[in-house]
Amino acid sequence: MTGSRVDQRRVRGAKTRTDVLRAAADLASRRGIEALTLGALSEQLQMSKSGVVKHFGSRDRLQLATIDYASEVFAEVVLGPAADQAPGLERLRSITARWLDYLTGPTFSGGCFFYAAAAELDRQPGPLRDSIQATVQAGLALIRDDLSTAAGQGDLAAGTDIDQMVFELHSFLQEVSLMHLLLDDPMGRVRGQRAIEHLLERHGARPLS
Amino acid sequence: MTGSRVDQRRVRGAKTRTDVLRAAADLASRRGIEALTLGALSEQLQMSKSGVVKHFGSRDRLQLATIDYASEVFAEVVLGPAADQAPGLERLRSITARWLDYLTGPTFSGGCFFYAAAAELDRQPGPLRDSIQATVQAGLALIRDDLSTAAGQGDLAAGTDIDQMVFELHSFLQEVSLMHLLLDDPMGRVRGQRAIEHLLERHGARPLS
Repeated sequence: MTGSRVDQRRVRGAKTRTDVLRAAADLASRRGIEALTLGALSEQLQMSKSGVVKHFGSRDRLQLATIDYASEVFAEVVLGPAADQAPGLERLRSITARWLDYLTGPTFSGGCFFYAAAAELDRQPGPLRDSIQATVQAGLALIRDDLSTAAGQGDLAAGTDIDQMVFELHSFLQEVSLMHLLLDDPMGRVRGQRAIEHLLERHGARPLS
Repeated sequence: MTGSRVDQRRVRGAKTRTDVLRAAADLASRRGIEALTLGALSEQLQMSKSGVVKHFGSRDRLQLATIDYASEVFAEVVLGPAADQAPGLERLRSITARWLDYLTGPTFSGGCFFYAAAAELDRQPGPLRDSIQATVQAGLALIRDDLSTAAGQGDLAAGTDIDQMVFELHSFLQEVSLMHLLLDDPMGRVRGQRAIEHLLERHGARPLS
């Protein structure tokens, strides 16, 4: 074995936990959580299986850690830029704009990690389903919180059914993923943005200036 | 080998193509198209692999035939009952009511076959993705046709953006699947029905009497 090959192995061995998780989340966005095996991942990363095992111990723990990592990425790219916005409609509009960017952008090469994982795991009871369910519920709670704040501030019409609004707003986000990922239709983001803005204004939100 | 075991084998061998497809579609609704292997299916049906191969020739052809079969089931349970309805709002309301039943009912044990398959295959180019894409587009066309007919009959407001309505109506159907399958929330069907009816009435449809 030449010196350079030894160096290369050292470099390969030095891949951090985050490097592995990034590759795992990206792979899962394209092929599903089920495709996340130690073998597939070690091959993709050109590292040994034992190197992957060292970080995670087992396939189950790798899969769970990947869901957690994807949640952190979502928080960073979607919620991070809205951190300084006032709670209520201002922050909600900021979050949904970034959310639409995320759904149609390059964060994961297979599109929204959770869109894929939700449909994959919804009928497979266990810790993976529990984790995806909790993450999706947290996403819905983000929307609900800002809508409730807006209603409390008088920025939405009195008597607005907040849970129905959450249902409709989140449904538009799901449809954007379908148009973008399956239908190859570039109008998804525009239609989603339009649907969300109409929904808000229909319930009394002041139009965007 | 006893006589009764021979009979049992004959019975097993006599499973029809439709028996196999029904089991395949049900399995795929729970575990994904990727889980449709000749081995998994022969085990579930208690028939030999060669028995499955006899009907389909290869795994690829089995998977494609399963998508076609699921389309036929959808047409039967969702479109069949609306066949005699007048095109336009009357038929659309009939179709969407049956569609909501299908999404939340027992047709497939893993819920909507296409909700699962769309998210699974959307980033995996090939004949399976093409087939799912065409089927989803056909579903959207059903909605678009009746909305266009309704607009042409003056049953929707002049200038209605039909494509935007299709986007919104179909998004509500997707969200019902998410609530039903992942979130274990029994309100999905009610919220979906309400969202669809509000959408129609907002664009000028006469309310249901």
